Amino acid sequence: MRVLITSGGTTENIDQVRGITNFATGSLGKRLSERFLMAGHEVILLAGLQAIVPDEQKALTIIRISDVASLSTAMARWLPTSDVVVHSMAVSDYTPTYMTDFDTVAASGDLNSFLAKTNDAGKISSQSDYQVMFLKKTPKVISTIKVINPNVILFGFKLLVDVSKEKLVDVASQSLTKNKADFILANDLTEINASQHHAFLVSQSNSGFVIEESHTKDEIAALIVAKSEETYDKNHSGRNR
Amino acid sequence: MRVLITSGGTTENIDQVRGITNFATGSLGKRLSERFLMAGHEVILLAGLQAIVPDEQKALTIIRISDVASLSTAMARWLPTSDVVVHSMAVSDYTPTYMTDFDTVAASGDLNSFLAKTNDAGKISSQSDYQVMFLKKTPKVISTIKVINPNVILFGFKLLVDVSKEKLVDVASQSLTKNKADFILANDLTEINASQHHAFLVSQSNSGFVIEESHTKDEIAALIVAKSEETYDKNHSGRNR
Repeated sequence: MRVLITSGGTTENIDQVRGITNFATGSLGKRLSERFLMAGHEVILLAGLQAIVPDEQKALTIIRISDVASLSTAMARWLPTSDVVVHSMAVSDYTPTYMTDFDTVAASGDLNSFLAKTNDAGKISSQSDYQVMFLKKTPKVISTIKVINPNVILFGFKLLVDVSKEKLVDVASQSLTKNKADFILANDLTEINASQHHAFLVSQSNSGFVIEESHTKDEIAALIVAKSEETYDKNHSGRNR
Repeated sequence: MRVLITSGGTTENIDQVRGITNFATGSLGKRLSERFLMAGHEVILLAGLQAIVPDEQKALTIIRISDVASLSTAMARWLPTSDVVVHSMAVSDYTPTYMTDFDTVAASGDLNSFLAKTNDAGKISSQSDYQVMFLKKTPKVISTIKVINPNVILFGFKLLVDVSKEKLVDVASQSLTKNKADFILANDLTEINASQHHAFLVSQSNSGFVIEESHTKDEIAALIVAKSEETYDKNHSGRNR
């Protein structure tokens, strides 16, 4: 199988010297890549600029991703020929459009006028005590995956912070349906550290949602590889992986 | 001499999963550290989380810095016993205080009320098409250096984007006076790449401003080491470095 893995975080530039970064080390994406490679699959790894990645090796292609726009471009390039997508990247929800001093915004009668503005300078000036930044939603990359390649097996990720298991599974189930994903891995930042990574892999069967629990990055990686192979075999009965 | 070098960039958290990062690789700080070490000096390197750093070695202490607050803390700890400070770090000018959806801000009659607000959630919700972020100015670390240690030899940095030499030198001269710095290295992002690093080192003599030009990171590092030693000798005539 050819497996497309996204890993690490994206950064949306504010100006040429600053940006909004999503924190993500890329360590799960690295572990996932290594597991798929060990199982004999080809891996295309779209990795954030700061993400850790596996050592160079045959059957592994690493492409560095800066922002959401570059992620979309790489997706469009690699998705049509992939069998599996594991979209674990922490993608920026919003991108900055304009930043200016607070007094200018407070004095304006029409806040909507700021939504169309952009900054000219390479480095936004910084004199005032308070500043205001306007941001707009980025395109949801996950929602385009099954549109571009309806046959791909899609693993999406949902990261929340300090919520109940019920909330995690509920959000994952919604994402599963909305994005036509085959699996959503739901995890909570407060349960991720160097030694543990608690997660629920949510999928749908004829009789309802199926929830499988993992406790470490290695368990998550093993489970995702096994589920990928199982689903591929079911979809392609009689054909080689 | 004991030399305190700051390098790389700081990151101010928006919530637990996102932050505003100042882009900086730390490569000049690494080169500077290596040059000072080669010349027999002790180096304390305060390095941003993503900054590249020299290999571990005797006489080198590396301390990782996340945000402006952690930089201030480390400065207060190491400044009193340092002879030279080379403050090359790209420090965040602003830190996020509150982020909410655009409609809430547009509907409010009093924008000042948002300046006192903070977000509760570990991860700020992201449903609306536009969001607004409020930011406040961070304390200027460079302005505190000579207050904490009036005898330290201070090298400050000014990074601008696509300006004239006159503008660069003008801004550097102002920073020199305002922060009681001994030297300001003024550089322009458009003249920094893998092979070149054009910069002006600005200082003050009895007869006016002195401007010395460098064209590479190695030239900059050599110049800063030479100027440090020269100034130290002048200040401590008859004593050992």
